[in-house]
Amino acid sequence: MLLPEQVIQELVTRGELWESAPGLCGMRGSLAALRADVSTTLRDLAMTETRDEWQMPQGVAFQTLETAEYFESFPQWLTAAAHLSGDEQSLARVARSSSPGDVARRSLEPASAALPPAVCYHTYAALRETCVEDSVMMTAEETCWRHEGVRMSPLERGWAFTMREVVFLGGSFETEDFRQRGIERASELADSLGLRARVAVASDPFFAPTSRGKAILQRVKSLKHELLVDCDDGHSLAIASFNNHERFFGEAFDITLPTGAPACTACVAFGVERWVLAILMTHGIDEDAWPIMSSATAAHGAGAAR
Amino acid sequence: MLLPEQVIQELVTRGELWESAPGLCGMRGSLAALRADVSTTLRDLAMTETRDEWQMPQGVAFQTLETAEYFESFPQWLTAAAHLSGDEQSLARVARSSSPGDVARRSLEPASAALPPAVCYHTYAALRETCVEDSVMMTAEETCWRHEGVRMSPLERGWAFTMREVVFLGGSFETEDFRQRGIERASELADSLGLRARVAVASDPFFAPTSRGKAILQRVKSLKHELLVDCDDGHSLAIASFNNHERFFGEAFDITLPTGAPACTACVAFGVERWVLAILMTHGIDEDAWPIMSSATAAHGAGAAR
Repeated sequence: MLLPEQVIQELVTRGELWESAPGLCGMRGSLAALRADVSTTLRDLAMTETRDEWQMPQGVAFQTLETAEYFESFPQWLTAAAHLSGDEQSLARVARSSSPGDVARRSLEPASAALPPAVCYHTYAALRETCVEDSVMMTAEETCWRHEGVRMSPLERGWAFTMREVVFLGGSFETEDFRQRGIERASELADSLGLRARVAVASDPFFAPTSRGKAILQRVKSLKHELLVDCDDGHSLAIASFNNHERFFGEAFDITLPTGAPACTACVAFGVERWVLAILMTHGIDEDAWPIMSSATAAHGAGAAR
Repeated sequence: MLLPEQVIQELVTRGELWESAPGLCGMRGSLAALRADVSTTLRDLAMTETRDEWQMPQGVAFQTLETAEYFESFPQWLTAAAHLSGDEQSLARVARSSSPGDVARRSLEPASAALPPAVCYHTYAALRETCVEDSVMMTAEETCWRHEGVRMSPLERGWAFTMREVVFLGGSFETEDFRQRGIERASELADSLGLRARVAVASDPFFAPTSRGKAILQRVKSLKHELLVDCDDGHSLAIASFNNHERFFGEAFDITLPTGAPACTACVAFGVERWVLAILMTHGIDEDAWPIMSSATAAHGAGAAR
């Protein structure tokens, strides 16, 4: 099995992977085709649960993240979209500068929207103050942003990355049942792709001391599992996570069941680029050795560049 | 034919379209499925030109936009991605605030990357200081960001929107030939979808007085055309643009032909959400009346929610 850095080095040498800025990667050639196939395969997996696919907004209101208590938990990751003031004078100052990029990056207005740290915040915001009949299950794929500073590394931990999520809202029993089914199906998919993956209890890296208790509770109550691929250097790659939030988001966003009780929620989340990396670590960088993803090949017109 | 605002109003009422923040829209139900079908149809059109599909980085280096003289031309649109300082104290200040979202949006570091205003800047940056043998042709779809202030309106002019581009680099004759072929194929696609579209000479809304001469040159030399759908209220929706940049990007990014001369470039760009809006304006919001996009239906597993 290759180490992540061996995979990355070879892809960069081949010109199939490059960084435009720290943590932001482009892909070409067989790597881009593999990424497209993985994206379609994960979409197909989600579709076995639900046909209700959404196209998410590209940014999240700060208010939504406040309601989700995001800033108490993960402020370290926050990334936001900001623009220049529209007034002619300040635009002219940028336009006439000898290093306009540098002037521009320091002249931004306060940010107008956060870039999504995860897909499911959109779901809770869209369903705010509604009553969920029986249950709601939806899926979406979206670019997510988490700034992890020096920990960033291509395909494994990008500043921006692609997340496929399936989100469930309903009663307590059905919610945990959905999560368990997600663990099974993701494990089966990993098996079918020849990945040696294992399921482990996990917790989120909460920031604030007050929130660190949440991490302990997560572990004690087994509310979060991850699907891990172990690397030969001893660290593990989490390629999917399975999260039961109990009544937390239902209460925060006032999403209720017909009984009037807050809805329970769970999400199953896949990191598209991490699945790509796991396949490359396991099977090597020669595309002839990659597993065949039949539905993907069909959907992408015989696999594009492959 | 429906007006854009009639389409939007109906979609919002149905709960299929919503804004998470000004200029940022989410989609559900038949609207989301239509958007997915349009995206696949435009991808198929691009694939008739080239099988070389790239996955673009989610952000652009400010240096790349400087090289492209972006700030002299379009600073008004610039949107950038910024994060908080990673130091524990300032994160704690955000986490402990009573309105952490508001503190966070005002506490961002200078931006680390621009969000892409168009797809093709990535292409020129990736090919910087290389020699193009004969020609290069590639395609990609990406979320692009342009802040157009009060002009923003859902599906027509989002702060963020989806752009499919096909980019050509090569000799002068082949470059213009590519652009003309793009005009023909896009017009044919519009016809096949029942859209009444017309091709017109256009120019970019350059910002700086010095750059406004570029707009005049663009028109005089017919370097930019748009595919327009006329609305009943008199304004037009540009659903595609066809741009010949001559040697501008080849010179700026030092991309040469085997002769040593700078490469010429052209791009054909499609606004995915504008095609969706044009279909809805033309055929109405009842999905039974929408044109069948056969390849799209196959690729998206029988059209998902449709």
